[in-house]
Amino acid sequence: MHVLVIGAAGMIGRKLVERLAGSPSVLGSDIEHLTLADAITPAVPEVLQSVTAALTVDLADADTATRLTEGRPDVIFHLAAVVSGEAEADFDKGYAVNLDGTRALFEAIRREGRREPYRPRVIFASSIAVFGAPFPEIIGQDFFATPLTSYGTQKAIAELLLADYSRRGLFDGVGIRLPTICVRPGTPNKAASGFFSNILREPLASNEAILPVSDDVRHWFASPRSAVGFFMHAATMDTSLIGPRRNLTMPGLSATVGEEIEALRRVAGDRAVSLIRRAPDPLIAGIVAGWPSNFDASRAMKLGFRAETTFDEIIRIHIEDELGGRLP
Amino acid sequence: MHVLVIGAAGMIGRKLVERLAGSPSVLGSDIEHLTLADAITPAVPEVLQSVTAALTVDLADADTATRLTEGRPDVIFHLAAVVSGEAEADFDKGYAVNLDGTRALFEAIRREGRREPYRPRVIFASSIAVFGAPFPEIIGQDFFATPLTSYGTQKAIAELLLADYSRRGLFDGVGIRLPTICVRPGTPNKAASGFFSNILREPLASNEAILPVSDDVRHWFASPRSAVGFFMHAATMDTSLIGPRRNLTMPGLSATVGEEIEALRRVAGDRAVSLIRRAPDPLIAGIVAGWPSNFDASRAMKLGFRAETTFDEIIRIHIEDELGGRLP
Repeated sequence: MHVLVIGAAGMIGRKLVERLAGSPSVLGSDIEHLTLADAITPAVPEVLQSVTAALTVDLADADTATRLTEGRPDVIFHLAAVVSGEAEADFDKGYAVNLDGTRALFEAIRREGRREPYRPRVIFASSIAVFGAPFPEIIGQDFFATPLTSYGTQKAIAELLLADYSRRGLFDGVGIRLPTICVRPGTPNKAASGFFSNILREPLASNEAILPVSDDVRHWFASPRSAVGFFMHAATMDTSLIGPRRNLTMPGLSATVGEEIEALRRVAGDRAVSLIRRAPDPLIAGIVAGWPSNFDASRAMKLGFRAETTFDEIIRIHIEDELGGRLP
Repeated sequence: MHVLVIGAAGMIGRKLVERLAGSPSVLGSDIEHLTLADAITPAVPEVLQSVTAALTVDLADADTATRLTEGRPDVIFHLAAVVSGEAEADFDKGYAVNLDGTRALFEAIRREGRREPYRPRVIFASSIAVFGAPFPEIIGQDFFATPLTSYGTQKAIAELLLADYSRRGLFDGVGIRLPTICVRPGTPNKAASGFFSNILREPLASNEAILPVSDDVRHWFASPRSAVGFFMHAATMDTSLIGPRRNLTMPGLSATVGEEIEALRRVAGDRAVSLIRRAPDPLIAGIVAGWPSNFDASRAMKLGFRAETTFDEIIRIHIEDELGGRLP
């Protein structure tokens, strides 16, 4: 089996590659070739070194898609994207990578299929950014995509293309609408959503964290481990059960900042919670107010996708996967 | 005022141009330039001959969009499309015209705006083909676009682009999701939806018409006159009232074939109805079964868009606009 991971150097991409390295037949049969591609050179896990090609690519380049598909991978994970803030700041770059790069990939698969029958499984990382406020309290399964960012627009367009190419049998696509990933490992970043992770990750490492919004802010979460699980399940599931609506809102946990904090208290105690410093930021509060907070994800759940159901779980997964299983 | 009509030789395009010719200041100020473009040379109304340029263009050509926008039209009606059946049969052509041609137009407007501030009103002809079965009994205002044709996919993508370009202030866009137009003038064609018009238009002209589905088939209609009215209203309305959700399901009449026939009987008598010959066609019945039949269009109605509320009205409009006001 040949597996291609585009966006292999990103946070989820790296974890996905680790999972692929963890068991040789995790996708049903042995991985004989693994192609890892990203804008920066992706790391190759030792156990897969002999079968892996690590490529540094620019999805906006016309040749990239052909280069990635000429090896006719059986499973393609497409996680690469210009992120939300950058796609908003740089209109051309966002469209070139997130729309044209994705479409070029789909077209390259189609060209391969005209040469010789070819219908790979394509798993595409979409986002709840395809939805735009105002929202109902719980966003239903058939709620429309009216994004309020260029990033969300590009993801929504890629979803439509994925569904049409799949309907025509050009590949076997599954769109995975990811919740906000929490706890994001690494260091605090400037993303408006960063605080959701910061207020857990930093106190767990005995550092102070800043909370710019009020405790009653509600949002939609899943752990990095769940995100990897979504992609693995999408790669191995029976896609005949999905039907033509190929893009799925993944399950997640709807929780408030206050619930996050109480989970932190239960797992790591009052001292950890005392490291959260409240510093209200109206700008961030305003941005976050336009985000969705709760979804009906029953369709994905019926299809076997699973996420956490409590923040205690999300925190424990962070401790297991990032902190060696224990608090410092 | 400079007005551009792309798709000016099509059925709605021609009627729209007639309406523009009917009154010099129908869009609020006098039309000083009118550019008509289509794949076949559009007809120029006599009264506008001195101010009109009629262009034969291929939207799939890279230069077309630049050529159309370099005159900086104030109002752009974009009605051109490769139709549903052809876009399904010719994948590349459908995407080249309906997606790339539309995007090239939007980009050409953006380029003009970088040269010198420019923010035209852009009215885009979308379609209820952005929706795909299964449907609720009445399709709500926030129902998702999961098209089951490449044509519907291309229209849904263009809607997303229109909303994003409008949100960024690159132009002032309104997407008009048209109902099935009835009564279509002309001769019976092979479109699967043709019979909805044929069973009225042909008996009204004393010809036989074939009805391939049962009387209880329900669908969503507006007259050609209403369609033109939608475009005119979108060109003149206060778009600040629309908000970021720029694509509007137009009002229409939800009616069954049986209701069509009874309206025909009321307007033209039993003799007309007797010219409808029932010839069930399971293939057409199957296609039509996947089409939407009823919408909540209250948002568009609140914004001032209007359509017929009875089939009697739709038939009378056909008699007025196509048959000189009386039955033969």
